Amino acid sequence: MTTDEVKRRYEAVSNWGRWGADDARGTLNLITAEVVTRAATLVRSGRVIGCGRIDETPSVINPVPAAHHMLAAGDLPEDGCGIAADYLGIAPHGASTTHIDAFCHIYFDGRMYNGHPASLVRSDGAQVNSIAALADGVTTRGILLDLPAVAGEPFWDPARPITATDLDRAAELAGVEPGPGDALLLRVGREPRRRLHGVAGERTADGSLFLAGPDASALPWLHDRDIALLGSDGGNDALPSPHTRERMPIHVGCLVFMGVHLIDNMHLEDLHAACTAAGRFEFLFTVSPLPFARATGSPVNPIAVL
Amino acid sequence: MTTDEVKRRYEAVSNWGRWGADDARGTLNLITAEVVTRAATLVRSGRVIGCGRIDETPSVINPVPAAHHMLAAGDLPEDGCGIAADYLGIAPHGASTTHIDAFCHIYFDGRMYNGHPASLVRSDGAQVNSIAALADGVTTRGILLDLPAVAGEPFWDPARPITATDLDRAAELAGVEPGPGDALLLRVGREPRRRLHGVAGERTADGSLFLAGPDASALPWLHDRDIALLGSDGGNDALPSPHTRERMPIHVGCLVFMGVHLIDNMHLEDLHAACTAAGRFEFLFTVSPLPFARATGSPVNPIAVL
Amino acid sequence: MTTDEVKRRYEAVSNWGRWGADDARGTLNLITAEVVTRAATLVRSGRVIGCGRIDETPSVINPVPAAHHMLAAGDLPEDGCGIAADYLGIAPHGASTTHIDAFCHIYFDGRMYNGHPASLVRSDGAQVNSIAALADGVTTRGILLDLPAVAGEPFWDPARPITATDLDRAAELAGVEPGPGDALLLRVGREPRRRLHGVAGERTADGSLFLAGPDASALPWLHDRDIALLGSDGGNDALPSPHTRERMPIHVGCLVFMGVHLIDNMHLEDLHAACTAAGRFEFLFTVSPLPFARATGSPVNPIAVL
Amino acid sequence: MTTDEVKRRYEAVSNWGRWGADDARGTLNLITAEVVTRAATLVRSGRVIGCGRIDETPSVINPVPAAHHMLAAGDLPEDGCGIAADYLGIAPHGASTTHIDAFCHIYFDGRMYNGHPASLVRSDGAQVNSIAALADGVTTRGILLDLPAVAGEPFWDPARPITATDLDRAAELAGVEPGPGDALLLRVGREPRRRLHGVAGERTADGSLFLAGPDASALPWLHDRDIALLGSDGGNDALPSPHTRERMPIHVGCLVFMGVHLIDNMHLEDLHAACTAAGRFEFLFTVSPLPFARATGSPVNPIAVL
Repeated sequence: MTTDEVKRRYEAVSNWGRWGADDARGTLNLITAEVVTRAATLVRSGRVIGCGRIDETPSVINPVPAAHHMLAAGDLPEDGCGIAADYLGIAPHGASTTHIDAFCHIYFDGRMYNGHPASLVRSDGAQVNSIAALADGVTTRGILLDLPAVAGEPFWDPARPITATDLDRAAELAGVEPGPGDALLLRVGREPRRRLHGVAGERTADGSLFLAGPDASALPWLHDRDIALLGSDGGNDALPSPHTRERMPIHVGCLVFMGVHLIDNMHLEDLHAACTAAGRFEFLFTVSPLPFARATGSPVNPIAVL
Repeated sequence: MTTDEVKRRYEAVSNWGRWGADDARGTLNLITAEVVTRAATLVRSGRVIGCGRIDETPSVINPVPAAHHMLAAGDLPEDGCGIAADYLGIAPHGASTTHIDAFCHIYFDGRMYNGHPASLVRSDGAQVNSIAALADGVTTRGILLDLPAVAGEPFWDPARPITATDLDRAAELAGVEPGPGDALLLRVGREPRRRLHGVAGERTADGSLFLAGPDASALPWLHDRDIALLGSDGGNDALPSPHTRERMPIHVGCLVFMGVHLIDNMHLEDLHAACTAAGRFEFLFTVSPLPFARATGSPVNPIAVL
Repeated sequence: MTTDEVKRRYEAVSNWGRWGADDARGTLNLITAEVVTRAATLVRSGRVIGCGRIDETPSVINPVPAAHHMLAAGDLPEDGCGIAADYLGIAPHGASTTHIDAFCHIYFDGRMYNGHPASLVRSDGAQVNSIAALADGVTTRGILLDLPAVAGEPFWDPARPITATDLDRAAELAGVEPGPGDALLLRVGREPRRRLHGVAGERTADGSLFLAGPDASALPWLHDRDIALLGSDGGNDALPSPHTRERMPIHVGCLVFMGVHLIDNMHLEDLHAACTAAGRFEFLFTVSPLPFARATGSPVNPIAVL
Repeated sequence: MTTDEVKRRYEAVSNWGRWGADDARGTLNLITAEVVTRAATLVRSGRVIGCGRIDETPSVINPVPAAHHMLAAGDLPEDGCGIAADYLGIAPHGASTTHIDAFCHIYFDGRMYNGHPASLVRSDGAQVNSIAALADGVTTRGILLDLPAVAGEPFWDPARPITATDLDRAAELAGVEPGPGDALLLRVGREPRRRLHGVAGERTADGSLFLAGPDASALPWLHDRDIALLGSDGGNDALPSPHTRERMPIHVGCLVFMGVHLIDNMHLEDLHAACTAAGRFEFLFTVSPLPFARATGSPVNPIAVL
């Protein structure tokens, strides 16, 4: 494709201006009070499942691991009440720790969501489109799509981009119709694949990330359904990208044009097991970023309640 | 009181062994599937409210502010897809940023919750009772108690410890009976007080923290009701402590003996306004710590859904 | 003064182009092999004195204190050889920890030393004029000028900017003629002043830094003598600045125009005592920054040998 | 060897008590005023060479790389004087960044240098034997021993521990007799080896470090000569250790028993080239740690002046 064709593809799914020039929440606007109250009715068994992980282990895919430093431990003198304390250092983006991307995380052709110039993401923080737009968190219906079930394999092959057709089939298997305001979680089976191929199997020979995810054909599919949030145990893009002029089309299409926030590197195995056991792939879903004023994202531990 | 009397007071509310010698969740065990499903029925209006704050401003009460460092901003060359990224550094304990305390945060007489020795909280992290016990987060009924309404003032006077009688009166005003598995949130009106007295007003002349909270008399009250979680816009203890031999009796009583997790420094003004407007002080409540394997707590952004 | 006059004042002391368009070392070029060998002959008594301090204490003038986190302490099991380790976090600039400024630390009218645009100091680090230019450190003659001796007081009054005349008088008292390649250290007696007025005395009522230092009149004086490095126990500028259109004229004049590196917040009391005892205010001086590839400065512990 | 034999070997080189029970400087006590003044006379050509490196690149041997975060870059509005600033995060120990070990870095059988218990290295920092003992830095004669020249190879084979005999031969080639108060620098040719085998060549198949260094037989040799400081471009121990009951005998012998500080991961290629060109392997040597009050070491950029 030419660069112009790429642009046109993005513009075809654009929501710029749809909720006004000052909007910073994108498709989260579709999570109406009614969507929330209906989502709460999905709580049936009272099973609560965390979907986040913190990766503290250095590896080829985790060059800046989450750091945990003790500041005071149990070896200090106790004065009526011993106190332990610590320090957490997290570079949330990358391929390891569960995090949510703010819109300011990605730009295309010098523009962020709703047309703001990339220059507003400054060395002292993002002046617009920061994670602070999610200070109230997100509570809505969550849907788990199980891609390995589509393939009939324990995990989705990263070399095969997930297409709109695959998503259709996964939704059919889940027995749920994704719609406006939904948090859509794509399980690619990264953990079973890692058990087989190790962390090293998530890199190509030339050092690129090698992770299963949708290709650009999924963008219109996501746009048509007006989902509010996209998550995955992978990186929400087929990596390395099969598109020559598009790098991470889901990241660009969702964060820059559609205004859909992304959650990368989720822990979905427990949720998958619970949904399978319950025979039900929809649930109440909550994610609550740390509301740093000018950050490009936040580590998160999303919660599903069945 | 003598040291022995202090110990007896704590032991009177102890839950050590109640859920087995290996238990690391304390009163979270009381959040049964039924408690969760009933909590979900409290969602009526679909109003979602974040109750967390990140304090990035150095001050006399915030000596180690949360740090936000940009690693890549909008000034870098863009290669088909511009990427911004950052680093977050957080020492969650203290009097400023909203955080949840793991049981290993506090010990008394060399012991943590369920009798584990403080020596298990090592310089490389807590071997037991860490925040990882909350990897699935907490979802339950939340109750907001408005202490300033009890006093008929815009905020509770930090010089006056909150007693069991005050809590009774606040529960009565809220029209809710706290019970097993509840997340109890005590609003002391810290933000209105800060607007009047500034951050400097949260310190005494000798440099101690000066924050409204319950005194030791509240412990049996909390224990009798079997609440699962205690939160506040203050520090969950009357500071400086009016007790000579007890330092932070709520922290010690809850974290060490009762096995009740604490959330300090919450942002409760929005929730208070919404509850007041709705005439309803109970709601669905979710808090999801970052599951660091050996940490003593986590910054959190708790979410209330009315 | 008008903005144009300010610019002219800076341009009058400019060394841009003097050592070529690619030069990144400025007046360090004046430290010839002969300057170094002559400096070594100043070692007479073999007395070695550290002139650096690390400020780990939060205060009104130290909002981001140097952080020291233990990663492994003596409480861990020992395996034939116990190992302790730690993490150091330092934001070197500011008014507390001893540090050296790279040229890229300051720009004026969008330009750095030797005319490079400020845009080359990017969110991923400085592409030019970084501290890496000092990877071999600086070894030269050091001269201590004792300003309080000029005033006949235990410390220099921050309200009174240090002028060229004051510097002349101080050099006369020191019995040394500053010249090309010298490291000139201006003692303003900050530590004795702090003992009297506390750290709080280093701030004005409106929260500005209040530190003794030279005003713009010192620039031609420094330029005429071709010194290579300027250091002080203060901040190397009279703060708050008495100049309306010039903010920190010594920082701008030295780092941007003259190409003179600055060392702020030195510990000069031990050196002052030793020089006074020896009746000699010149010595061998070494400062060796940590050679981060793209940093704007480095914490340092400069060494004087008498 | 039995454990008792290992202990006896260490005790044979012990300097505990030699400079009093409270001594925290070990063999640095041998750097007398006379040693310093004589070292200054070694400055002949005025050539100044930095011997430190900061490793900011994640790798198999650098799991916690030195971090450089910009806090303010050239993209921010300029107010009369643009200011850039940054943050440096360094875990100095390990196999990559040049650092000096404080005595508290290592203990054997629960004891540090001069017999202090390991328990004094607490989670809030070392109460004794910290790097603050080197607040005045170290200035003395430096000697470069070129081990590859002994082998007649471009680098020393890590599989072959360096023995006392090798050190004798290297000193003979250097034409210098190491003696009391010297800083002895052992060049193993790590950089030429890395150019051939890559960073991956510094690990064994099972993930251990694979670095050239002396074995335990070097301890009496070092002790007999009373050197004050030992440095290397490697890790100052043959790794993995050929000794079954001794892990890192040079670290234990030097830091715990002899009281000799160690500098690991030096950059010695420039110094080697300069010494070779000058036909002289002794020089003035300065290293100045950041004087953190309770740290176990410091990143350093040692300086040699020929």
